[in-house]
Amino acid sequence: MARVSFRIVFEDRTALGPGKIELLERIAELGSISAAGRVFGMSYRRAWTLVDELNTMFAVPLVHATPGGTGGGGARLTALGERIVREYREVEATIHAGTADALARIDADKRTG
Amino acid sequence: MARVSFRIVFEDRTALGPGKIELLERIAELGSISAAGRVFGMSYRRAWTLVDELNTMFAVPLVHATPGGTGGGGARLTALGERIVREYREVEATIHAGTADALARIDADKRTG
Repeated sequence: MARVSFRIVFEDRTALGPGKIELLERIAELGSISAAGRVFGMSYRRAWTLVDELNTMFAVPLVHATPGGTGGGGARLTALGERIVREYREVEATIHAGTADALARIDADKRTG
Repeated sequence: MARVSFRIVFEDRTALGPGKIELLERIAELGSISAAGRVFGMSYRRAWTLVDELNTMFAVPLVHATPGGTGGGGARLTALGERIVREYREVEATIHAGTADALARIDADKRTG
Protein backbone atom coordinates (compact mmCIF):
# COMPACT_ATOMS: atom_id res chain seq x y z
CA MET A 1 0.00 0.00 0.00
CA ALA A 2 1.00 3.60 -0.46
CA ARG A 3 2.09 5.49 2.63
CA VAL A 4 2.81 9.07 3.62
CA SER A 5 6.43 9.90 4.42
CA PHE A 6 6.73 13.15 6.33
CA ARG A 7 8.91 15.48 8.33
CA ILE A 8 8.12 18.49 10.46
CA VAL A 9 9.83 21.61 9.10
CA PHE A 10 10.28 24.60 11.40
CA GLU A 11 10.46 28.27 10.50
CA ASP A 12 14.23 28.28 11.03
CA ARG A 13 14.40 25.49 8.38
CA THR A 14 15.49 22.82 10.82
CA ALA A 15 13.48 19.62 10.44
CA LEU A 16 12.39 16.63 12.45
CA GLY A 17 11.86 13.41 10.52
CA PRO A 18 11.74 9.67 11.10
CA GLY A 19 15.53 9.20 11.26
CA LYS A 20 16.03 11.55 14.21
CA ILE A 21 12.96 10.24 16.01
CA GLU A 22 14.05 6.60 15.65
CA LEU A 23 17.49 7.54 16.95
CA LEU A 24 15.90 9.18 20.02
CA GLU A 25 13.78 6.08 20.62
CA ARG A 26 16.83 3.83 20.48
CA ILE A 27 18.78 6.10 22.84
CA ALA A 28 15.87 5.85 25.30
CA GLU A 29 15.87 2.08 24.92
CA LEU A 30 19.62 1.41 24.94
CA GLY A 31 20.89 4.23 27.16
CA SER A 32 23.75 4.97 24.79
CA ILE A 33 24.18 7.23 21.77
CA SER A 34 26.77 5.06 20.07
CA ALA A 35 24.78 1.85 20.66
CA ALA A 36 21.67 3.57 19.26
CA GLY A 37 23.60 4.72 16.20
CA ARG A 38 24.95 1.21 15.57
CA VAL A 39 21.38 -0.07 15.19
CA PHE A 40 21.16 2.08 12.05
CA GLY A 41 24.71 1.40 10.91
CA MET A 42 25.80 4.92 11.86
CA SER A 43 29.30 5.82 12.92
CA TYR A 44 29.80 7.13 16.44
CA ARG A 45 30.50 10.53 14.95
CA ARG A 46 27.34 10.56 12.83
CA ALA A 47 25.12 9.60 15.78
CA TRP A 48 26.67 12.33 17.93
CA THR A 49 26.28 14.89 15.15
CA LEU A 50 22.56 14.11 14.92
CA VAL A 51 22.17 14.33 18.70
CA ASP A 52 24.00 17.63 18.68
CA GLU A 53 21.66 18.91 15.96
CA LEU A 54 18.64 17.81 17.99
CA ASN A 55 19.97 19.38 21.19
CA THR A 56 20.62 22.74 19.55
CA MET A 57 17.38 22.74 17.51
CA PHE A 58 15.25 23.03 20.63
CA ALA A 59 15.37 25.59 23.41
CA VAL A 60 16.63 22.90 25.79
CA PRO A 61 18.38 19.59 24.99
CA LEU A 62 16.46 16.43 24.07
CA VAL A 63 19.29 14.10 25.08
CA HIS A 64 21.36 14.17 28.25
CA ALA A 65 24.70 12.39 27.92
CA THR A 66 26.93 11.55 30.86
CA PRO A 67 30.73 11.46 30.47
CA GLY A 68 32.11 8.06 29.56
CA GLY A 69 34.27 6.42 32.19
CA THR A 70 34.63 2.67 32.45
CA GLY A 71 31.76 1.24 30.44
CA GLY A 72 31.51 4.29 28.17
CA GLY A 73 29.08 6.64 29.90
CA GLY A 74 25.42 6.76 29.08
CA ALA A 75 22.66 8.83 27.60
CA ARG A 76 18.97 9.30 28.23
CA LEU A 77 16.18 11.47 26.91
CA THR A 78 15.26 14.58 28.84
CA ALA A 79 11.61 15.24 29.71
CA LEU A 80 11.42 17.38 26.56
CA GLY A 81 13.02 14.61 24.49
CA GLU A 82 10.41 12.13 25.67
CA ARG A 83 7.61 14.59 24.95
CA ILE A 84 8.87 15.38 21.44
CA VAL A 85 9.04 11.67 20.54
CA ARG A 86 5.51 11.16 21.85
CA GLU A 87 4.16 14.22 20.02
CA TYR A 88 5.86 13.20 16.76
CA ARG A 89 4.36 9.70 16.95
CA GLU A 90 0.95 11.24 17.65
CA VAL A 91 1.27 13.42 14.55
CA GLU A 92 2.23 10.31 12.59
CA ALA A 93 -0.78 8.34 13.88
CA THR A 94 -3.09 11.26 13.02
CA ILE A 95 -1.66 11.46 9.51
CA HIS A 96 -1.95 7.73 8.90
CA ALA A 97 -5.51 7.51 10.19
CA GLY A 98 -6.62 10.66 8.37
CA THR A 99 -5.19 9.75 4.97
CA ALA A 100 -5.79 5.98 4.75
CA ASP A 101 -8.89 6.22 2.57
CA ALA A 102 -7.45 8.79 0.19
CA LEU A 103 -4.20 6.80 -0.11
CA ALA A 104 -6.16 3.68 -0.99
CA ARG A 105 -7.87 5.63 -3.80
CA ILE A 106 -4.57 7.04 -5.10
CA ASP A 107 -3.02 3.58 -4.91
CA ALA A 108 -5.90 2.13 -6.95
CA ASP A 109 -5.53 4.98 -9.45
CA LYS A 110 -1.85 4.21 -9.76
CA ARG A 111 -2.48 0.54 -10.51
CA THR A 112 -5.44 0.79 -12.84
CA GLY A 113 -5.63 4.45 -13.91
CA MET B 1 4.88 28.15 12.33
CA ALA B 2 6.02 24.59 11.91
CA ARG B 3 4.57 22.66 9.00
CA VAL B 4 4.43 19.08 7.75
CA SER B 5 6.34 18.38 4.55
CA PHE B 6 5.23 15.10 2.97
CA ARG B 7 5.34 12.81 0.00
CA ILE B 8 3.31 9.75 -0.91
CA VAL B 9 5.56 6.70 -1.28
CA PHE B 10 4.28 3.68 -3.21
CA GLU B 11 5.18 0.04 -2.78
CA ASP B 12 7.36 0.15 -5.91
CA ARG B 13 9.33 2.96 -4.18
CA THR B 14 8.21 5.66 -6.60
CA ALA B 15 7.01 8.78 -4.85
CA LEU B 16 4.70 11.72 -5.37
CA GLY B 17 5.67 14.95 -3.63
CA PRO B 18 5.05 18.68 -3.88
CA GLY B 19 7.48 19.26 -6.76
CA LYS B 20 5.73 16.91 -9.17
CA ILE B 21 2.28 18.08 -8.12
CA GLU B 22 3.17 21.75 -8.62
CA LEU B 23 4.60 20.91 -12.03
CA LEU B 24 1.32 19.18 -12.98
CA GLU B 25 -0.66 22.21 -11.80
CA ARG B 26 1.45 24.56 -13.90
CA ILE B 27 1.11 22.32 -16.96
CA ALA B 28 -2.67 22.45 -16.52
CA GLU B 29 -2.50 26.22 -16.19
CA LEU B 30 0.02 27.01 -18.94
CA GLY B 31 -0.67 24.21 -21.42
CA SER B 32 3.04 23.57 -21.90
CA ILE B 33 5.61 21.35 -20.19
CA SER B 34 8.54 23.64 -20.92
CA ALA B 35 6.66 26.79 -19.81
CA ALA B 36 5.63 24.99 -16.61
CA GLY B 37 9.23 23.93 -15.96
CA ARG B 38 10.49 27.49 -16.46
CA VAL B 39 8.30 28.66 -13.57
CA PHE B 40 10.52 26.53 -11.30
CA GLY B 41 13.74 27.36 -13.11
CA MET B 42 13.89 23.85 -14.61
CA SER B 43 15.54 23.05 -17.91
CA TYR B 44 13.34 21.71 -20.68
CA ARG B 45 15.01 18.34 -20.23
CA ARG B 46 14.40 18.25 -16.49
CA ALA B 47 10.71 19.10 -16.86
CA TRP B 48 10.27 16.39 -19.49
CA THR B 49 12.12 13.85 -17.34
CA LEU B 50 9.73 14.53 -14.46
CA VAL B 51 6.70 14.25 -16.73
CA ASP B 52 8.07 11.01 -18.11
CA GLU B 53 8.50 9.68 -14.58
CA LEU B 54 4.94 10.66 -13.73
CA ASN B 55 3.55 9.10 -16.89
CA THR B 56 5.28 5.78 -16.30
CA MET B 57 4.57 5.70 -12.54
CA PHE B 58 0.86 5.30 -13.12
CA ALA B 59 -1.04 2.72 -15.11
CA VAL B 60 -2.00 5.43 -17.62
CA PRO B 61 -0.33 8.79 -18.31
CA LEU B 62 -1.06 11.89 -16.25
CA VAL B 63 0.06 14.31 -18.98
CA HIS B 64 -0.86 14.27 -22.65
CA ALA B 65 1.60 16.14 -24.84
CA THR B 66 0.90 16.99 -28.47
CA PRO B 67 3.77 17.21 -30.99
CA GLY B 68 5.26 20.66 -31.37
CA GLY B 69 4.65 22.38 -34.69
CA THR B 70 4.63 26.16 -35.05
CA GLY B 71 4.25 27.49 -31.53
CA GLY B 72 5.84 24.42 -29.93
CA GLY B 73 2.99 21.97 -29.33
CA GLY B 74 1.08 21.76 -26.11
CA ALA B 75 0.34 19.66 -23.09
CA ARG B 76 -2.60 19.06 -20.82
CA LEU B 77 -3.47 16.82 -17.91
CA THR B 78 -5.43 13.66 -18.60
CA ALA B 79 -8.52 12.89 -16.52
CA LEU B 80 -6.29 10.77 -14.26
CA GLY B 81 -3.77 13.61 -13.99
CA GLU B 82 -6.48 15.99 -12.85
CA ARG B 83 -7.77 13.45 -10.34
CA ILE B 84 -4.32 12.75 -8.88
CA VAL B 85 -3.65 16.47 -8.36
CA ARG B 86 -7.02 16.85 -6.64
CA GLU B 87 -6.51 13.78 -4.46
CA TYR B 88 -3.01 14.88 -3.47
CA ARG B 89 -4.26 18.34 -2.46
CA GLU B 90 -7.04 16.70 -0.46
CA VAL B 91 -4.50 14.55 1.38
CA GLU B 92 -2.50 17.73 2.06
CA ALA B 93 -5.54 19.58 3.42
CA THR B 94 -6.40 16.61 5.65
CA ILE B 95 -2.84 16.49 6.98
CA HIS B 96 -2.70 20.22 7.67
CA ALA B 97 -6.08 20.32 9.40
CA GLY B 98 -5.41 17.17 11.41
CA THR B 99 -1.97 18.16 12.67
CA ALA B 100 -2.32 21.91 13.31
CA ASP B 101 -2.83 21.63 17.08
CA ALA B 102 -0.03 19.13 17.61
CA LEU B 103 2.34 21.22 15.45
CA ALA B 104 1.56 24.30 17.52
CA ARG B 105 2.51 22.32 20.66
CA ILE B 106 5.74 21.03 19.12
CA ASP B 107 6.56 24.52 17.90
CA ALA B 108 6.05 25.92 21.41
CA ASP B 109 8.23 23.10 22.82
CA LYS B 110 10.94 24.00 20.33
CA ARG B 111 10.95 27.65 21.35
CA THR B 112 10.63 27.36 25.10
CA GLY B 113 11.42 23.72 25.92
